[in-house]
Amino acid sequence: MIYFVSSNKNKFREVKRILDRYNIDIEFKELSLIEIQGEIEEIAKHKIKDAYKIIKDEVIVEDDALFIDELNGFPGVYSSYVYKTIGNDGILKLMKDAKNRDARFVSVIAYSNGYTKLFKGIVEGFIAENKQGVSWGYDPIFIPKGYTTTYAMIEKDKISHRSMALKEFVRWYKS
Amino acid sequence: MIYFVSSNKNKFREVKRILDRYNIDIEFKELSLIEIQGEIEEIAKHKIKDAYKIIKDEVIVEDDALFIDELNGFPGVYSSYVYKTIGNDGILKLMKDAKNRDARFVSVIAYSNGYTKLFKGIVEGFIAENKQGVSWGYDPIFIPKGYTTTYAMIEKDKISHRSMALKEFVRWYKS
Repeated sequence: MIYFVSSNKNKFREVKRILDRYNIDIEFKELSLIEIQGEIEEIAKHKIKDAYKIIKDEVIVEDDALFIDELNGFPGVYSSYVYKTIGNDGILKLMKDAKNRDARFVSVIAYSNGYTKLFKGIVEGFIAENKQGVSWGYDPIFIPKGYTTTYAMIEKDKISHRSMALKEFVRWYKS
Repeated sequence: MIYFVSSNKNKFREVKRILDRYNIDIEFKELSLIEIQGEIEEIAKHKIKDAYKIIKDEVIVEDDALFIDELNGFPGVYSSYVYKTIGNDGILKLMKDAKNRDARFVSVIAYSNGYTKLFKGIVEGFIAENKQGVSWGYDPIFIPKGYTTTYAMIEKDKISHRSMALKEFVRWYKS
């Protein structure tokens, strides 16, 4: 059994749904860990260290971030703070009339059992003109490449940045 | 002589200008310190600890943040990242047609000589409809209460959040 440390239950549900398919047991541990400001991998590394210190058992944390080219990478690693303050409506306002709507969603899964390993998933895509679908986070405004609608409207587990990072983890964990 | 640790030379110039009046010598030490994500006081406390470990002498760091009510406190403690990505134009877009333009600028000065002390300055104000004046950071869009134009257009050292925090520091330091 692995613990998943996060303050976000939606994130846990998604992770559990994906790991269930691979028969990997995961349990939610609701904890707010101190996040540093920096690159996504650095943030994940600091968090997994702190999480392991507390849990002292197999543990996973996940960090994800939405990078929008037209906004110089904003909201980036502050995606969760930006979501809580200006939200999707704020992002759509900032992107009004923007021609370059390119964006990417990055997920970093950090695992530790004392020894730490990181796994990364990246999905390229676009920012929608309007919200489509009901879900959590930026799902209603992110259209993955090759699709015509948002994460919130499709079965995203098959292709999402989070599931890609988790599949990398599973491949390593099972071997 | 006190060291001022920052990655922002504009900030140092302002601090020096203010402390010069009180005959306090300050020297710039360009360093990027790891910032945690959290409340402004917590961030300053972490940074001053790290700064003192490196400098091992009297040292000051400053953190400031612009909180906009209509945007639920955004950009807040991520003001510097938000400035580098979406900038003042982004903030003005988000505030387009907003009736509540209330905002406040908060500065926290952290001093250490081994022993750490924090000083805070707060200035209430409004977000301008358009940029006014040429300066750095959010100065061209922040109108302090009781004024009709922005920080960038007035002699802000007399009333700014940074100078208020610094004056608190000077009062304590000289006594």
